[in-house]
Amino acid sequence: MIERTARGAKTLPGEYYTSESIYEEETERIFTKRWLYVGRASDVSEPGHYFLHNMDKESIILLKDEQHSIRAFFNVCRHRGTRLCTEARGRFSQSIQCPYHAWTYSLDGRLIGAPNMHEVKTFNKEEYPLRDVAVATWEGGVFMNLAESPEPFENAFAPIVNKYKQWHLSELQVAHRRTYDVAANWKLILQNYSECYHCPTLHPHLNRLTPYRDSSNDLEAGPFLGGPMRLSGNNESMTMTGRSCAPTLGEVSGTDLKQVYYYVIFPNMLLSLHPDYVLVHQVQRQAPDRCRVVCDWLFHPEAISHPDFDPGDAIEFWELTNKQDWHVCELSQQGVASRAYTPGPYSDLESMIAAFDREYLSALGMSG
Amino acid sequence: MIERTARGAKTLPGEYYTSESIYEEETERIFTKRWLYVGRASDVSEPGHYFLHNMDKESIILLKDEQHSIRAFFNVCRHRGTRLCTEARGRFSQSIQCPYHAWTYSLDGRLIGAPNMHEVKTFNKEEYPLRDVAVATWEGGVFMNLAESPEPFENAFAPIVNKYKQWHLSELQVAHRRTYDVAANWKLILQNYSECYHCPTLHPHLNRLTPYRDSSNDLEAGPFLGGPMRLSGNNESMTMTGRSCAPTLGEVSGTDLKQVYYYVIFPNMLLSLHPDYVLVHQVQRQAPDRCRVVCDWLFHPEAISHPDFDPGDAIEFWELTNKQDWHVCELSQQGVASRAYTPGPYSDLESMIAAFDREYLSALGMSG
Amino acid sequence: MIERTARGAKTLPGEYYTSESIYEEETERIFTKRWLYVGRASDVSEPGHYFLHNMDKESIILLKDEQHSIRAFFNVCRHRGTRLCTEARGRFSQSIQCPYHAWTYSLDGRLIGAPNMHEVKTFNKEEYPLRDVAVATWEGGVFMNLAESPEPFENAFAPIVNKYKQWHLSELQVAHRRTYDVAANWKLILQNYSECYHCPTLHPHLNRLTPYRDSSNDLEAGPFLGGPMRLSGNNESMTMTGRSCAPTLGEVSGTDLKQVYYYVIFPNMLLSLHPDYVLVHQVQRQAPDRCRVVCDWLFHPEAISHPDFDPGDAIEFWELTNKQDWHVCELSQQGVASRAYTPGPYSDLESMIAAFDREYLSALGMSG
Repeated sequence: MIERTARGAKTLPGEYYTSESIYEEETERIFTKRWLYVGRASDVSEPGHYFLHNMDKESIILLKDEQHSIRAFFNVCRHRGTRLCTEARGRFSQSIQCPYHAWTYSLDGRLIGAPNMHEVKTFNKEEYPLRDVAVATWEGGVFMNLAESPEPFENAFAPIVNKYKQWHLSELQVAHRRTYDVAANWKLILQNYSECYHCPTLHPHLNRLTPYRDSSNDLEAGPFLGGPMRLSGNNESMTMTGRSCAPTLGEVSGTDLKQVYYYVIFPNMLLSLHPDYVLVHQVQRQAPDRCRVVCDWLFHPEAISHPDFDPGDAIEFWELTNKQDWHVCELSQQGVASRAYTPGPYSDLESMIAAFDREYLSALGMSG
Repeated sequence: MIERTARGAKTLPGEYYTSESIYEEETERIFTKRWLYVGRASDVSEPGHYFLHNMDKESIILLKDEQHSIRAFFNVCRHRGTRLCTEARGRFSQSIQCPYHAWTYSLDGRLIGAPNMHEVKTFNKEEYPLRDVAVATWEGGVFMNLAESPEPFENAFAPIVNKYKQWHLSELQVAHRRTYDVAANWKLILQNYSECYHCPTLHPHLNRLTPYRDSSNDLEAGPFLGGPMRLSGNNESMTMTGRSCAPTLGEVSGTDLKQVYYYVIFPNMLLSLHPDYVLVHQVQRQAPDRCRVVCDWLFHPEAISHPDFDPGDAIEFWELTNKQDWHVCELSQQGVASRAYTPGPYSDLESMIAAFDREYLSALGMSG
Repeated sequence: MIERTARGAKTLPGEYYTSESIYEEETERIFTKRWLYVGRASDVSEPGHYFLHNMDKESIILLKDEQHSIRAFFNVCRHRGTRLCTEARGRFSQSIQCPYHAWTYSLDGRLIGAPNMHEVKTFNKEEYPLRDVAVATWEGGVFMNLAESPEPFENAFAPIVNKYKQWHLSELQVAHRRTYDVAANWKLILQNYSECYHCPTLHPHLNRLTPYRDSSNDLEAGPFLGGPMRLSGNNESMTMTGRSCAPTLGEVSGTDLKQVYYYVIFPNMLLSLHPDYVLVHQVQRQAPDRCRVVCDWLFHPEAISHPDFDPGDAIEFWELTNKQDWHVCELSQQGVASRAYTPGPYSDLESMIAAFDREYLSALGMSG
């Protein structure tokens, strides 16, 4: 075990969880600049398949185009600003047509039809493509970046781009998805995930499978933070029974069969790797005091197609744990809004939150 | 057909649909300065009859006084500010009494009773009449103006005051009233009404009755905008069947039997004239992203009293059309709030929106 | 009867009932400086018993400690700000434990357990007690003060500290409690309570028991305002029947058997003394246009334990009166938000409101 220390750090001041102006600052400096996890590539497996990603007042269309590339566009018609589609997921047949005046866009975003606009002499279809958004895929996940000149994904993710090879993540499929509305600032979700100091109190069952001090971190600074926890005794995975509920993934072997790995991928993804399945949380900001969390349970398609496949043991375990976590996040949101709240001291078991806070403040342009 | 052109105009910037401060500017420069349509004179047919008109946080009492004049007062007691009445419509018996301390006002607004106030030496009942609001009636419609020195109604409405004589509008009565809550800025409702470019896509049935290009405008600038559309083939009116559902109104004759007329009456009335009935929309602002629309189907009382009278064909037609329109207005509201939205180009078929935008910006004191 | 006069005073300008900035000014100058009534000492009769008091975004724990002292603490863990408890009332078993990381506080607020924190060299448990809030009890009521150096309760309440001895208030118990959510500014509740000018109109039944002009005031300036009203005819108390519903309280005798007393105790308590029972209103601010009122019907425990005890006659009377009052308060809230509202003249029967307004403006630091 590596020696952990929070270096005397304290929790963030209350306004970081309640202020509208800091929320907007986050929009400008983080959520429209960083790569955001938005879903799985398998959510758009065929040309025309799409899903919508909502963030604050924005709606983004993620789709697979005719060349089998994943693309992202603002869900806003270039004519009068109308939302082009409202169903959370579905399939376009070769083009996207605005329901108002039938302006029509190809799946790569070009305006290909604009009835009657030929009468307007100054009008040129080429000037009105859908506003596009940068997209990258990595390990089966889809990421988008709203910046005009985003940092290349490979740069941004260089520290971890090859880190999870043995789980064969890109092969996995969603066996279960659950969406939670949480009355807490998004950072409280990530901070909660970054420590197991709360596990003996809040998650007694989890704490039997992975005793809270049997953990270490292999990424201790920057936008990617986390590391392994050891499974105790004969336990094989994080499930209600402690047993695996699917064959071992990919090339997982050796000590990785007795460990689970937890990583914060700044700013909105949590990656939890088990020997037999993978859990991914996507955190969507909605207001200073509100967020939505989408949680995917990923299994190998061969496991899923097996007649005896039953992921219930893993689903029940994390549904229970998620609910316990969101409840205390909501209690924290209430308390940090108090005039009596002042930053409190982190334990050394919370060293990863201290690292998260530093990265967050740095991303905001604060010295921390 | 007159040659239409939007002269290269583009849609309004997003803040006009979302900003609280522009909303307040509209309050000061438009909604407390211009004549607003608030209902039908037939809604207050007898002395004492009243209805309430709500606008933002204001409530206005519209009533018929003992001299059979229609009057309007703020629904606010001069003693401690209490709302005098809360029922949307009803009848006062000779006076208006505050439910709190029984201060009592005559139907022409004078304070005629104030228990115990004779003990206050400086008190003079004549100083505390209800605050009144200017009222005008025209073609059976009631209009109010919250300005302290309003422009005379006859001045303001001079361009159209005699325009609709042949429909005998003042004789008509409300056969059906429907109220809609729409999650869209009020201007999106008026802009939607100002063009039929969307008809082929959104209203295929309407477009068969009045093909979208068979239209022209006889009022092309200023606060009154609109003109006729031609009924196709054997169609007689805007109904589900295309048949009339009542005898021809007043002195409507000649080409007017084969046309319908649509007018925006700035800032909150839409007037739709058919050979056999008239539709009036009243648009009430509620918030930057919310309004209420009250829609009246007006028929001649002789038609209404006929045993075979059935306005269902007209009601169903416009209920369908209204819902289709409000839906796209709500989609536009969502899109124009996006950071990706920028003003888009109007087609020449949207020349009346461009004229509306110019009038609106001018009313706001902007050069446009 | 003392001669009453409102001295020509007028009602407060509308912004005092609607403005967010005045609301915050009230927070700083009144609600975090003055002694607030929060409940009955009998609500925390045994060590460990507690109840929560909510005010705006704050939650305060009121409890009885091991030494049988009543104490108050902000409901905020010193570690990461988490709410310590959420149940409105209950019992702690010797300590208060945070549900997140099990930081544990004694009932007198000391941090007595902080797992793993011994590893943090700079950490000292004594630096992290719960943030405490000043508490006082008087006549069976519990009061708190959020100021850092509050004015001593005995000072603040000197004018009335011995005023109500003959009712033996501290012996009384809550026979019935009712909570009301009212869509009105908190001051409208207190102003409504301060006059009976509205009684003939709004409370015809009450007005028969205590005719509105048969009243006087024995506290006419400052934070405590009010006085007696005479019971008419054979009436014995404020009940539906006019009969007493319990034996006479304490040493009440003589003319007090034919009177009821009403006092505003600034800023959030209303005290209504009857010969046989006492009514206490607690007014909780929630927003400029919203408050919560908790109403207790207090009786002597001997009366309560009598097999024939039936407080229904008193409960029904004040439930009816409360609802009538809250309704007109809500109507006033709507009206004073109007652009047409301007301060209106008080009658001399409203002299106590004028006194309340002066005290309120003075507390806000305004000259009035």
